[in-house]
Amino acid sequence: MNDRQQFGRRLDFEGGRVELAHGAGGKASAQLTAELFAAAFDNPWLNAGNDAAVLALPADLAGGGGRLVLSTDGHVVSPLFFPGGDIGRLAVNGTVNDLAMLGARPLALAAAFILEEGFALAELRRIVASMAAAAREVGVAVATGDTKVVERGQADRVFITTTGVGVVPAGVAPAGDRARPGDVVLVSGTMGDHGVAIMACREGLGFETALESDCAPLNTLVTDMLAVAPDIHVLRDPTRGGLAATLNEIAQQAGVGIVINERALPIRPEVASACALLGLEPLDLANEGKLVAIVAREDAPGLLEVMRRHPRGSNAAIIGEVIADQHRFVQLVTEFGGRRIVGWLSGHPLPRIC
Amino acid sequence: MNDRQQFGRRLDFEGGRVELAHGAGGKASAQLTAELFAAAFDNPWLNAGNDAAVLALPADLAGGGGRLVLSTDGHVVSPLFFPGGDIGRLAVNGTVNDLAMLGARPLALAAAFILEEGFALAELRRIVASMAAAAREVGVAVATGDTKVVERGQADRVFITTTGVGVVPAGVAPAGDRARPGDVVLVSGTMGDHGVAIMACREGLGFETALESDCAPLNTLVTDMLAVAPDIHVLRDPTRGGLAATLNEIAQQAGVGIVINERALPIRPEVASACALLGLEPLDLANEGKLVAIVAREDAPGLLEVMRRHPRGSNAAIIGEVIADQHRFVQLVTEFGGRRIVGWLSGHPLPRIC
Repeated sequence: MNDRQQFGRRLDFEGGRVELAHGAGGKASAQLTAELFAAAFDNPWLNAGNDAAVLALPADLAGGGGRLVLSTDGHVVSPLFFPGGDIGRLAVNGTVNDLAMLGARPLALAAAFILEEGFALAELRRIVASMAAAAREVGVAVATGDTKVVERGQADRVFITTTGVGVVPAGVAPAGDRARPGDVVLVSGTMGDHGVAIMACREGLGFETALESDCAPLNTLVTDMLAVAPDIHVLRDPTRGGLAATLNEIAQQAGVGIVINERALPIRPEVASACALLGLEPLDLANEGKLVAIVAREDAPGLLEVMRRHPRGSNAAIIGEVIADQHRFVQLVTEFGGRRIVGWLSGHPLPRIC
Repeated sequence: MNDRQQFGRRLDFEGGRVELAHGAGGKASAQLTAELFAAAFDNPWLNAGNDAAVLALPADLAGGGGRLVLSTDGHVVSPLFFPGGDIGRLAVNGTVNDLAMLGARPLALAAAFILEEGFALAELRRIVASMAAAAREVGVAVATGDTKVVERGQADRVFITTTGVGVVPAGVAPAGDRARPGDVVLVSGTMGDHGVAIMACREGLGFETALESDCAPLNTLVTDMLAVAPDIHVLRDPTRGGLAATLNEIAQQAGVGIVINERALPIRPEVASACALLGLEPLDLANEGKLVAIVAREDAPGLLEVMRRHPRGSNAAIIGEVIADQHRFVQLVTEFGGRRIVGWLSGHPLPRIC
């Protein structure tokens, strides 16, 4: 906006609330965009005030060989603020990570807000500030967006859909259907931290040790990994549905079986205790800053070393292998040496975990 | 998905309802994606089953000079089905049109669904089928997506955020800040049809003449327009907030005044009557298949002719001009020759119009 003073009285971020007019497309909408979104996400695309962002094409794409990646995720997590993160940070990192799982670096993000009439502007500002900080950390702009407001009781406070466009370098092509018998399965760190942090928060449990979400961007970890192993077969972030769902998806896509070892799985003791207390299964729990990689056996040792050197991969581990299996089963070798089938979400569904 | 039979019993699209498990990331989520979304949007990106779509770069972009456009819009319209369209068709065309307003042709769409637990699968399927048809009409794929489910009462049935990535040819650069004194303002057809159709539907008014939303894609109209006038200064679709908000936004962005003539404004008689009855102002009402173009005076006659030859522009008209005005006012010359300032959304806000 050329003139920040055009709206008369500024928005009241202390006691103000979201009003239907903020979503009506008139002056109040423009004011919310200018004084909240454009101010926080400060970048030339948003400041231009158009309904879309026009992006220059990066040189490696213009030169040919590169490909674009498009990914979208709705975020409805409850509570909005939790130990280790909030819906805003989750919304940015979730999409950055979806791009990273295709080997892509983020080019720009779009953010669409659905707000409930009466939602406190102070909370909205806190969420938007957190998104802006997360975007700066990654070095990507929230280049365009949209805001809708629905009547009180027709949505729960705030839902955020973030969409990212990214660029994949030539020669990089991780995909779920590329897992092959003999490949090795790695994870970048402890499983279940996000899911347990949210559930503990909801249940009002006060654990002595802090249970925090692992909400974090994985783009630089992936860059380091691709530098030593450009032909990673599969990269996936085990979010909703956890490692269990992710491995089952891959087994289905690739038409293979996967065997993992319980002993090798990195799980924080406090997460294991909380799971026991809440009746949850760590393998079903969402992660928001972890990845699964499936690679040719000869690539695994070098990759593990690089992952462990990265701050987001210090607990990385080789957890299992891909086998030929026409049933496409995911199996767990238990600590006692038995085997069980790992189903898709063997526990009860956990709504609004992300 | 490689194996459509993997889920056992198929989804019940007659009596079934959305369950929390459909959003939990496990087998039920995968089943909804496979049997509903991937089946309807049928394309290689969705069928690949990854969390993002990898898009080959079009030749004109790879050759240099072209730019990418990113646009996102949340859709919360109520009712979900209305004369002339539904939330699905709106979600596709809204984003296609946002891209078109930058002169871009759509490359791919992403769709994120937020569903209320208990929403009928039959209605969801109808909406998704409508999106798929709208996407086919435009020739663009819904290449990636996401589904979240929130508990009953925490959202109103279904919200859809669509995001599009498009390509702008070299030399095309319409933008809100390019309106110049002396430029001419055109609209592509009648104003207010969508807004009145929705409001009439909500109020349960049975008009003798059918009031239909104008919901339609504008991409081919824009292609025809750019062919005769590549240097269109501004292109905007007057959706939420209507023509009044759109012209005020442009006046603010460009630092100019705009004068339009009431006599020249195309408005259907039935829309005018409904507005009188409902206490609405046609200039504030949303359009979902119309555009405003601002061009150099010498380009206007040729452009008008081309617009009128296109099925979506048969009622196109020159409605006013851009003037120098440090106050950045939008003025209406009334039918009686008087002048009044056109404010941003002079009537009451109309929630959930799109």
